[in-house]
Order: sequence, then structure tokens, then C-alpha cells
Amino acid sequence: MSTVSLDRLNAADKAQFAAMLGAIYEHSPWVAEAVAAKRPFATLAALHEAMMDAVRGADDAAKLKLIKAHPDLAGKAARAGALTADSTGEQASAGLDRLNEQEFETFHRLNAAYGKKFGFPFIVCVRRHSKDSIFRQFETRLDHDVAREYDTALQEVFRIAALRLDQHVEAPDKLNVQGRLTTHVLDTHSGHPAPGVAVELYELSSTGTGRLVTTSVTNADGRTDAPLIAGRPLPIGRYELRFSVGDYFARRSLALADPPFLDVVPVRFAIAEPEGHYHVPLIVTPWSYATYRGS
Amino acid sequence: MSTVSLDRLNAADKAQFAAMLGAIYEHSPWVAEAVAAKRPFATLAALHEAMMDAVRGADDAAKLKLIKAHPDLAGKAARAGALTADSTGEQASAGLDRLNEQEFETFHRLNAAYGKKFGFPFIVCVRRHSKDSIFRQFETRLDHDVAREYDTALQEVFRIAALRLDQHVEAPDKLNVQGRLTTHVLDTHSGHPAPGVAVELYELSSTGTGRLVTTSVTNADGRTDAPLIAGRPLPIGRYELRFSVGDYFARRSLALADPPFLDVVPVRFAIAEPEGHYHVPLIVTPWSYATYRGS
Amino acid sequence: MSTVSLDRLNAADKAQFAAMLGAIYEHSPWVAEAVAAKRPFATLAALHEAMMDAVRGADDAAKLKLIKAHPDLAGKAARAGALTADSTGEQASAGLDRLNEQEFETFHRLNAAYGKKFGFPFIVCVRRHSKDSIFRQFETRLDHDVAREYDTALQEVFRIAALRLDQHVEAPDKLNVQGRLTTHVLDTHSGHPAPGVAVELYELSSTGTGRLVTTSVTNADGRTDAPLIAGRPLPIGRYELRFSVGDYFARRSLALADPPFLDVVPVRFAIAEPEGHYHVPLIVTPWSYATYRGS
Amino acid sequence: MSTVSLDRLNAADKAQFAAMLGAIYEHSPWVAEAVAAKRPFATLAALHEAMMDAVRGADDAAKLKLIKAHPDLAGKAARAGALTADSTGEQASAGLDRLNEQEFETFHRLNAAYGKKFGFPFIVCVRRHSKDSIFRQFETRLDHDVAREYDTALQEVFRIAALRLDQHVEAPDKLNVQGRLTTHVLDTHSGHPAPGVAVELYELSSTGTGRLVTTSVTNADGRTDAPLIAGRPLPIGRYELRFSVGDYFARRSLALADPPFLDVVPVRFAIAEPEGHYHVPLIVTPWSYATYRGS
Repeated sequence: MSTVSLDRLNAADKAQFAAMLGAIYEHSPWVAEAVAAKRPFATLAALHEAMMDAVRGADDAAKLKLIKAHPDLAGKAARAGALTADSTGEQASAGLDRLNEQEFETFHRLNAAYGKKFGFPFIVCVRRHSKDSIFRQFETRLDHDVAREYDTALQEVFRIAALRLDQHVEAPDKLNVQGRLTTHVLDTHSGHPAPGVAVELYELSSTGTGRLVTTSVTNADGRTDAPLIAGRPLPIGRYELRFSVGDYFARRSLALADPPFLDVVPVRFAIAEPEGHYHVPLIVTPWSYATYRGS
Repeated sequence: MSTVSLDRLNAADKAQFAAMLGAIYEHSPWVAEAVAAKRPFATLAALHEAMMDAVRGADDAAKLKLIKAHPDLAGKAARAGALTADSTGEQASAGLDRLNEQEFETFHRLNAAYGKKFGFPFIVCVRRHSKDSIFRQFETRLDHDVAREYDTALQEVFRIAALRLDQHVEAPDKLNVQGRLTTHVLDTHSGHPAPGVAVELYELSSTGTGRLVTTSVTNADGRTDAPLIAGRPLPIGRYELRFSVGDYFARRSLALADPPFLDVVPVRFAIAEPEGHYHVPLIVTPWSYATYRGS
Repeated sequence: MSTVSLDRLNAADKAQFAAMLGAIYEHSPWVAEAVAAKRPFATLAALHEAMMDAVRGADDAAKLKLIKAHPDLAGKAARAGALTADSTGEQASAGLDRLNEQEFETFHRLNAAYGKKFGFPFIVCVRRHSKDSIFRQFETRLDHDVAREYDTALQEVFRIAALRLDQHVEAPDKLNVQGRLTTHVLDTHSGHPAPGVAVELYELSSTGTGRLVTTSVTNADGRTDAPLIAGRPLPIGRYELRFSVGDYFARRSLALADPPFLDVVPVRFAIAEPEGHYHVPLIVTPWSYATYRGS
Repeated sequence: MSTVSLDRLNAADKAQFAAMLGAIYEHSPWVAEAVAAKRPFATLAALHEAMMDAVRGADDAAKLKLIKAHPDLAGKAARAGALTADSTGEQASAGLDRLNEQEFETFHRLNAAYGKKFGFPFIVCVRRHSKDSIFRQFETRLDHDVAREYDTALQEVFRIAALRLDQHVEAPDKLNVQGRLTTHVLDTHSGHPAPGVAVELYELSSTGTGRLVTTSVTNADGRTDAPLIAGRPLPIGRYELRFSVGDYFARRSLALADPPFLDVVPVRFAIAEPEGHYHVPLIVTPWSYATYRGS
């Protein structure tokens, strides 16, 4: 599914409209069809709200069918390459296409237990989660009763739909689905922002070593040219920033200890609000540092 | 060699005196013999100074013989269990008795290169170093010329002697051979020291994962009951403190994010002054922390 | 009243004992007399407890007489120099002997209002308060009912007695009546404690400028040789520490801005726990600083 | 002199052009006349450069006349209201129109000494200075020799011209004559920016109390809606920010000490770079704070 403008969606005939938004709800073009007559939509938020209302207003059988239209996470369909394009991208975003055998078995076991208890697949908006966080969701939600899980599943369906709308529709407004992770290195030894500091971001996992998410280097303003993560939800999970301040201070020709007191400074933190702005700066001298959740 | 008091050393006959201090200089009881007539020594420092003077005043052949009396680090004698008791303990303190094959080969290669270039064994006061730091010393000193290494070797012999004196002789004064690593956790969310915070200290290595040095828990004053390292030199090297502040704040029943922004806080730093006092505190809230080299 | 040891109090005859402790409760030697037969006291705490019990067990007329035996704060007796030695020192400790006319009038008005409402003088353990805090106490307590003030007055009488015991009796134990204010300057530009930093402590007042309490200079360990306040309760009130870090960094020959970004750093804080330990350090570079309530 | 666009200056006839820029150099319209033929100017920077070149290329008599065309600071002309409009505004910006008698006398004395030594008036770009800083400049520059002061005077004439161009000419580019002072309050007790914190900015003076420069309140992002100073050079001088964090935390219904450990937090700092960006944030909990020069 490519990008389309809200204007074009408003101007299209009903069949085109339904076709263009048919993939927003998994295997359920009826949701788009149900709102075609409510056009024009002034905002993407209004379109999203109308589609959610269509789902909420459907009968229980239709809702359950919508829920069941979703694939298992890291399930057989995924292994067989039989997912929708959106689902494929979403599962890959959390690394579900790169599981080792043990993780695959865990997913298999959890999917089976969940399906047996609730009678429908486990649905989670995976772009809002790291792999660890998905496992935690699975375990927490397996303890729920059916009614609560049914509601939760619909909420996650709506979150998935919101993200698909955000990615596929150009509109004057933005849905609140994107977060932002930024950093900043301030050198309080010199009283200036620290340029040229290498920064690495790792996603940590309970089962092993971290996964490198991105690398960057601070610019003249002590910031990275682009946010470390942006344009998408921040996956709930644990992270580590690594700042190469030893190299930075060495380049400034300071008389440092040997080895220097600080070299690579790790800052380990968790993201809990996928749509939030996390600013995690480093205020540093060769002998001290501070960090905090800023904004 | 057991512990002996300075008083007893002063009162002993010459043969006893030489026997009691015979192991201070490796396989070289003549150093002790040479200072027996200078007794009584009012302080351990005076005794140490006199013994160093005896070495400095010896002829070149005697000095070279003293240097050559030292075993290779992690060498054949060590493998064969043929070291003096002191050397055995010293090499074990830096983990040289627990090398993997690759590290053993590296030591073998470096010992051979050093011996070939200088004609005497590589001597370093290993209690002042981590394994990584010993490798770095080796590489740095291989670039020196013979005269400089000869001087360096004697300096290290003196450092070894000072530490042996510190361990074996009870005296009213202390030689400046011990360092101290301490920490402190202050909770600036509540305005009080943080009790019950689990603290782990790891020695980091360039070739792999860290080695757990010690664990502790902060007391009511936010400090550990005993220093993390004390009573010996601080081995030059890189370290990581890990503070379990997530568990601490969870016990205080604060409304934290899920997962909490901060859980285990790593503080990575290097020690460069074995005889120094390193105080590395953590000033922390659920959303921020600061650390520094204090004293 | 001079200092006396607990041993001597235990060994004295009853009349001597009563004489030596006659001033602990204002104009009420009967309290000491009442406990003479309970000797020996193993600790100062036991003696204090026994004397409080004697007061608590007295009839209401005796208690009221004890309360009424206290002078007005900054009242006529004080102006006339007719206070007991202890009361004279106590009132001076909070500056009540150096009031300006307006403050004197305020005390006069508050004493009159209090006496009219409650029928006994306003009693507060003045060593635990600054002048501002005494005014605040006056205003708060004027709103109480008589029963509550009666209890409060007795509590303050006991606090006054505890402090007098602490000052006049030498014993193996200490009553918990002393607080401590300390500081520490750490230079994280150099990674060392900051020696030679001039420190001033002012007590702030709502009605005017601050009163200089003490000055000091940091030693080689970045601390002051003696606590800024010790050996007494910390008066509840607002304070300002002033650290001359501009002069300190200038002496270190750093290339500073002109004028330097930081010169005299004021740290303004309040003391609310007279028996607490307040450690208020400064962690500073030429471009940054941090402070906190430590311990 | 009102605002004019660079386009209009480029299009005007020579007489209009000279009239519109006649006040850029004090009583010296010849500078504008000299560059009229060099039009069109693509940028304000090019115009400024051309005018400076015209001055630099003039003969010594013309330059000296230009220098002498400037009024004394706080001198007789100022008192008589006989300054140019620009000079009037400039002198008022540093408070030179609100001197007390002692300050007026000091200026009189310094002007006289300077005039006697150098033969021309003391020129300084007053918008770049606080009153204290102007006094300091006076004292420093009185020690210079004539050649150095002559150069310094011309530099200050150019700075004054740049500021007048910045204020009077609209152009696509900006001269680097404006600084910016901003702040930010981050509450690391809650992990969020602190809204609603009252902030006061005072300019400090060596001779007395501070002068209130501006007040503001932090918004939802913990920042002030507008910079504390912007659109002009930051006057070199000493300042104090006062943050009412006690009121802020009290509104958040935290259980604070009584009185609260922190109430109004003063941050005292100096500005040395009039064209710089000074960001002076406060990272605060009820028990701690940190500040630094950020950007």
C-alpha cells in the first residue's frame, strides 16, 4: 500500500476509497466501506475516529471475525511468508523475523496457550514494543479474563490501524502515534556543547546482549543531526546509550588520568511511553557526569 | 611468612631478623642482612627506606641478580607451582593463575620478547594492576630502552617490597601502599541516603565480559559497611559499578513508569592511582542520576 | 552553672544533687529533688527521663507553676537583665537580645496576646529556632486551643531541660539534642576536592538582610576543619551558604570568561530538623554546579 | 530614525540614502555618503562592511573628528537632553539616565580623566554592557596608551554602528549583534518539565542591590514563552535568576519539610559574551538542584 493524500481519499469514488484503505484493518475492507459515505473528512483524526466507530458499532460476530483475521506473532503464516505487507513490516520492526529457535518455541507455546484460553489470536501493536516487551505483554495478558482480553485486543487493533493510517495517508494533521528519542552532550569542563562525541544506542534484551539500534555523532551544538528514534512509536523496552567521552576529551588535549576516569559512558534506561519525547542528555566532565529524562 | 611486629624485628638477633625479612626481596635475603646493623627502626618507613638504600648501594651485578631472581609472570615456574609464597599470592591477585590458553600464550610471547630484548624478566608489582593493565604495561615497556627498563624494574621491585612489608610487619606507621574504593547512594527524591541498594563491582576486560569483584548492599547511611576495595592497592584498570535502584524505588512504593526509567544503573570508570581514594557515589531519583569522582 | 559529671551527681548527697541540677527546670529545683532518691542513674537519658516523669506526675497546679516560672521572650525581665543565666544565654542564642524597636514591639504584642489567651507565658526552646522561626511559632501557636498549648508548653520545657542537661552534665551517653551542618566543595573540573574556598554562612530573615553566622575556608579535603554548626541544635530557619568559587578557579590559572561565569555561588536552603545532620555540598566547575541535602 | 528596508536603501537616490543612514555614525553623514555609489548591497553585512571600510580609509583627521563627535557617557549633553535619539536610547539602556549623584560624579571624574589623557571622549557600545561593566571598562581602558585606545574607540564606533544598522534596516540577513538568555526548569522528582515556576532575573551591581530586569513563569514545557533577554546584545555583567521552586512543589502536594529545604533558588552568574546564547537551566527536586551554562 503506497501513500495517498486525504484530499484524494475524499475525492475518490467509493470503491477506490475502500480499496485504498482496505488494508488499514487486517483483511477487513468492510471497515473502510462503512465510512465512505461519511466523507469528506477534514482531518486524519476524523477519519480514524469514524473507522473506529464503524468497528465499535459492528455486531459481536463481525468484531470477533476482525480479531481472528490477525495472524499469530511469529507464527506459521509468518514463517511461510503468508502475511499481509503491513503485518510483515510490523513483525519485522520488533525483530520477530529474526528469532532464534528458543524464542520461536516460546512464541509457539505462548500463541497456543493464548489461543486455547481466549479462542482468538494474541494481538499487540508490535511497533510499540521491543521483543522483550512483547514477551512481557504475552505473560501479563495470559492472566486476564476473556472479556478484558477482548477489549484489549480491539484497543490494539485500533492502535495498529492508527499507525497504518499515519504511514499511508498524508493529511494536514498528525495522529499522536510517533515518539522521539533525542540526546545532547554538554561539556561542563569547557562550558560548551561537546561536538564529535560518538553515540551508540542499543536495545537491551533479558536473554542476551544488546542489539545496536543506531549510531550517531554529536554536532557543533552537542546534539545529533537527527533524533536517535523518530517518525514511529518508541518501542517499549530497555535501552543503553553509550557515549565515547574518553575519545572526545583526549582530542581536546586535556591532561587526563591513564587510563582516563571516564571512557565510554553507558546510560541505561527504559522507555514506557511509545508516543512520548525522551530526551536523555549527558552533562559531563572528565571526572563526573549527570543524566536525566528531559524533554 | 607470617606477621611480625617491628618491635620484635628490632629485638631479634641478626640471623632471626634476616630470616624474618628474607622474603621481602625475592630470593635475596642479603638485603635484610645488610640493614640489620642499622636497627632499631622507629618506623616501617625507615626500615623500607634502609632496605631500598641497601639495594641502591649494591653493585650492578648484585642488582641485576636481584632483578633476575624474579619469576616470569604466568611463566613456567608459576605453572609448575615453583614460585615463592609471596609471588604465588601476588600473581593470583591479578588472576594470572586463571588464564585461558590464549592469554597464557600472550604472556609467553611477551615474556620471551621482553627477555630477549632486555636480558632480564619483566617485573611489575602485579597487586597494583588488573590483567588488562599488565598487558598494557608489557606493551608500553617493550618500547623502552634497556637503561629505562632497568630503572623501572628496580622501582617495581621496591613497590613489591613495600607491599610485602605492609603485609608482614606490624608497625606504628603505615606505608602508602593501600588505596580505597567507596561508594554512596543518595536518594534526592526523598532527600535521604538510600538504604538497601544492591551494589555490584565488576572489573572489566578488553577481551570479554566483566569479572565480579564484590557485591554489597547500602546501609542506613547509604554507604556500604566496608569499602568495596581496601587494605591493598587498587588495581589499575576499568570497572563498572551496578546499582539496583529500580528495586530500591519499587520498595518505596513510588508510582514508577512500567518498565521504570531507571533500573540497574551502570557506572563505568577507570582507576589510575592504586594508592588513591576513589569515592564514586550515585545521586539518584527515579528520573535522573549523577556520579563523580569524589574523595 | 558549671559542668558536673554524672558520677559526681550520683555520689553527691541529696542537697548537693538538687543544687547542682536546680536550674535544669526554670526556678523549679523541686524537679531535681524529686528524683534524687532514684539514683544512681546509669545514663544521662535515664536522668532526663526520670526528671520528665517527676514533672508529668506532679499535680496540675505544680505544672502550671512550672510553666509560669518561665520568662517572656524578649520581655521586661530580659530587658532588665533579670533572667536566669541559662535563659539569658538561650535568648541571646537566637538574637533576642539584639532586637530593633519594631521587633521588640512585635514580641511585646505577641507576648500580651498569648498571655491573655492562655494565661501563661509563651515557651519555646529558643536554641532550636532562628528569630524568624520564633515569630512563625508564635503566630501558629496563637491559633491553638488552651489544652493543646498546655501540652506544647510542657514539651518545650522538656526540650529546654534536655539541652541544659546536655550542656551541664558530662555522661557516657549523649541526649539527641545536637544537630550538625557541614559542607564540602568538590571540583569536578580537576577531579579533586577544592581547597581554599572561602565559605560564608548567613541566616536569612524575612525582614531584612542576612546575619553572618560563620565563615570558613575549605581544607585539602574540600571540607571545613570544623562543622559550620555543631554542638547545639540547628536553629530552624532559612540560610544561605556563599562559596567563593571564582577566586578558587582564578588561583588555579584556568582561562575563565571575564567576568567569570560563576563567582560567588549562593546556596539558599532551610533547616527544619534541629537535631538532624545537614550536609550541603557544592559540586562545581567554572560552568556548572550542583548541590543537595546529603548526610 | 525609523525602520527602512535594504531594498529601499538600494533604490533611493543618493541624498535620500545618505539621509536615511546619516545617523548610523554619530553626527557623521559623510560615512553613508561615501558608500552610496557602491550600491546595491546584497546584504546588511555588505553594507556594514562598506561603511566600516569608508571610515578605515578616511584620513586621521576625519577619524578623530568622528570619534570626537560622540558625547560623553552620562555627561553634560546627556543631562541637557542634547543627545542624538540613538545616543539617548543607548545610554538609557544601561541605566545611565538613572544615575544617583555619586555615580554621576564618578562618571564626571572618569570622563575628565579620560579626556585629559587621550584627547577624545570615552566611547563604548553601551548596549553591550551593564552599568558595572561600563565602570570596569573605564578603569581598564584608562591604563591603555593612546594608540591602543584610538583603535579601541574605532572598534566601539563600529559596534555602535552595527547595532544601529540592526535596529534600523530590514534585510534578508542579520548582523551578529544579538544574544539570547533562556532558562528551563526540569523537575526530576516527577520526571517532567516544571510548569508554573515564577522566575525573576536581576542585574546585580557591585554598589548595591539588584535591578529587576524581567519576570516570567515557566510554561508546560518548563520554559518561558519568550527568552529572558533577546533581540539585543546581552549586557556584560552579573545576574541572578530566582526560581520559586518552593511554591511549585507545594502546589504538587508533596510532603515537604517545614520550612521546605528549597524555596527560592538563586542562581548567580555572569555574562561575558554579549552576542552569545546563554541557557541557564535548573534541574531540581525538593532536595537538590543543578545548573550549568548550556546552549
